[in-house]
Amino acid sequence: MKALEEKILKDGVVLPGNILKVGSFLNHQIDADLIMEMGREIARLFHDERVTKILTIETSGIAVALGTAAAMEVPMVFAKKNRTGNLSGEMYETKVHSYTHGTDYTVVVEKRYISEGDNVLLVDDFLANGKALEGLMDIVAQANASVAGAAVAIEKGFQHGGDELRARGVRVEALALIDSMDGGEIVFRD
Amino acid sequence: MKALEEKILKDGVVLPGNILKVGSFLNHQIDADLIMEMGREIARLFHDERVTKILTIETSGIAVALGTAAAMEVPMVFAKKNRTGNLSGEMYETKVHSYTHGTDYTVVVEKRYISEGDNVLLVDDFLANGKALEGLMDIVAQANASVAGAAVAIEKGFQHGGDELRARGVRVEALALIDSMDGGEIVFRD
Repeated sequence: MKALEEKILKDGVVLPGNILKVGSFLNHQIDADLIMEMGREIARLFHDERVTKILTIETSGIAVALGTAAAMEVPMVFAKKNRTGNLSGEMYETKVHSYTHGTDYTVVVEKRYISEGDNVLLVDDFLANGKALEGLMDIVAQANASVAGAAVAIEKGFQHGGDELRARGVRVEALALIDSMDGGEIVFRD
Repeated sequence: MKALEEKILKDGVVLPGNILKVGSFLNHQIDADLIMEMGREIARLFHDERVTKILTIETSGIAVALGTAAAMEVPMVFAKKNRTGNLSGEMYETKVHSYTHGTDYTVVVEKRYISEGDNVLLVDDFLANGKALEGLMDIVAQANASVAGAAVAIEKGFQHGGDELRARGVRVEALALIDSMDGGEIVFRD
């Protein structure tokens, strides 16, 4: 998506360790116009997939997922990182490994929000090693629902999580797919 | 806002301890249509206030804040509950007390996302004792910016945080203001 690629080139900051900071428009401050446009683009890409629900993971995935849900006119669910007192009822639960923090964390989704027969589109802000999407796929599998595919704002192609999912037959769409950030220069895949 | 009140009566669940569960449409599963409509209503209410930025707090405030930012065509910022490796630069920091969990937590906002001259509208899903909004007001004060007001989806009027803020001169708008939930019966303020 041209508008997102241009925004990344203009406002993204590459830090050592292949970190791409996009906090000025995607995951700390949020450019609402751009996010809603991204949602419409994801809706266009998955228009023929009969998607019944959007699933994301807190926190950074929520904005893109909401933009997508608004465009597709389906409900959105976000997996929660911590059990809180306000969560009751039975829950799907899965473990996700975070490379950024070097730890595992558990995410939960109340069972009644994903049902057998749902065709679930996974949405997130970043796709690198794919661990977060794998966790969401595990939750969808526990619900005996199907995965329509995965849509992410930015895929770090050089970390191969996306290609591994594609090799397993999952449709993965990235609005911006970065093949390299060597020396701070961002190269998008054609 | 009629549509939100009706949704609360239809799908909200009152639990012991004055807890209102709205996870089926507001803060776990999200009704995107309703959220975007709520954003447009908040934009209408604060239309004359020259708002330059929306500020909320992760996680549950993000959806309503994004709907508002999209309707007002201004950027949205969410205060983060934990420092992560991806946050760099100087930050505003404040402590918020959580009654639900009985603990204090720290939220941070990168300084460059709120500037002197900004007129900031605070947005959140719930207003009960007002501690989260007070934390956001503290961040706005640290930035020498001004508070345009606060807009929340649901105010628990019987917990008085909203009325205390109003008494201090802050404009507080609730799309649904609940005066009582005694015996599980939800009574809205006229």
